[in-house]
Amino acid sequence: MGRIICTGLGPGDPDLISIRSDRAIRQASHVAYFRKAGRQGQARRIVDGMLAAGVREHAMEYPVTTELPFDSPDYIHCLAQFYDDWADRLKALVATGAEVVVLCEGDPFLYGSFMHLYLRLKDHVPVEVIPGIPGMVGCWNASGVPMTWGDDVLTVLMGTLPEAELVRHMQGADALAIMKTGRNLPRVRRALEVAGRLDQAWLVERGTMPGQRIVKLAEVEAEDCPYFAIVLVHGHGRRPVMGGEE
Amino acid sequence: MGRIICTGLGPGDPDLISIRSDRAIRQASHVAYFRKAGRQGQARRIVDGMLAAGVREHAMEYPVTTELPFDSPDYIHCLAQFYDDWADRLKALVATGAEVVVLCEGDPFLYGSFMHLYLRLKDHVPVEVIPGIPGMVGCWNASGVPMTWGDDVLTVLMGTLPEAELVRHMQGADALAIMKTGRNLPRVRRALEVAGRLDQAWLVERGTMPGQRIVKLAEVEAEDCPYFAIVLVHGHGRRPVMGGEE
Repeated sequence: MGRIICTGLGPGDPDLISIRSDRAIRQASHVAYFRKAGRQGQARRIVDGMLAAGVREHAMEYPVTTELPFDSPDYIHCLAQFYDDWADRLKALVATGAEVVVLCEGDPFLYGSFMHLYLRLKDHVPVEVIPGIPGMVGCWNASGVPMTWGDDVLTVLMGTLPEAELVRHMQGADALAIMKTGRNLPRVRRALEVAGRLDQAWLVERGTMPGQRIVKLAEVEAEDCPYFAIVLVHGHGRRPVMGGEE
Repeated sequence: MGRIICTGLGPGDPDLISIRSDRAIRQASHVAYFRKAGRQGQARRIVDGMLAAGVREHAMEYPVTTELPFDSPDYIHCLAQFYDDWADRLKALVATGAEVVVLCEGDPFLYGSFMHLYLRLKDHVPVEVIPGIPGMVGCWNASGVPMTWGDDVLTVLMGTLPEAELVRHMQGADALAIMKTGRNLPRVRRALEVAGRLDQAWLVERGTMPGQRIVKLAEVEAEDCPYFAIVLVHGHGRRPVMGGEE
């Protein structure tokens, strides 16, 4: 019997992949990855030039992305079918003795699509999951500013949350990382303004990747709808930490 | 002129260091790392067997750890002096043309001691910081349970916070990672109980390292005061995500 190895790819720069994931990817005879239909996909792009000759590729193309509301019964049913189907296909591959490396951006257990396959596979075939540097960690590194000090509270939010909920969490935490921005960016921005934190917010687009852009969120045009973007508010520590520091 | 390279070492397993950090560590002619006086230190232990022959080691030993209250003026002054002193020593090394690799557990910008040196160095000498997999990411990977789904809110808390503040944040978020537990574990446990979340909490000790232990926090003896331990409460997603899932 073979097995599944899910490799966390980190924030985007292939040099930030772990030693263990790097080895698994380069030795793989089967790789699988999620992508939008018709796109190369971010996970596949990260490992460009790393795959062995003759590797078999399994592109797991989402049946829907934004065509249906993400909380509608149709969307949920459609995605459940999709994950059921791919779990069955991967199980069948493993039964032939294959080792299948699943490529996942960031860390697989932090909001990763692989988790849906993981729950379907883990009681049936051997599954190893290799953690990765989350995208937000790559982004705050790229910003050049430390993220959390002392007993700062860090809260990670999705831009899909209702505005009032965003505001409440933005007021309650010291440091913030806001993911799934994109089309939600105007709401995220309004919520930061209401919470009194817009002037401390940075937008990091394509963090650690070619075309990286880091700007103050307050200076982003309203129609600007960036890809692979995370909004960060850095913590500053809530007590006077060091005499010599700013 | 030389430079400073701060390498994020990840959660503890050397196989989880990034390709870029691994290369910097193996090529280093100078390494520096924080440790308690008289101990080997966790950062140094992680790179055991990776350092080149003849490397010069600079152990930056904390002048105090828990002898003084961490918010007392004496403690703050003493640590500020310590960081000033090491920043000066590293600057002097860099001025001789040396490249100094600073070893940091987890990710350097997430509650890392290096940040205190970074602020003192960055305007004077070239400093490169390489992100790492945070300890909490290694711990939730070790737990074998995905951490966040859908629009779950993840909050990272320090066990040093006052109990009432811990309770408030524990009630407000879906997923929780609580660091700096150790002597604060009884307070963390009480706060989780008050917040109604103790039964979902896991203690991960020495995550990804030899001697790793993962237990339900409710089953830990009160006198048990573990090292390198993080408390996790996994998120479950707040809407019905998938038909086939538990």
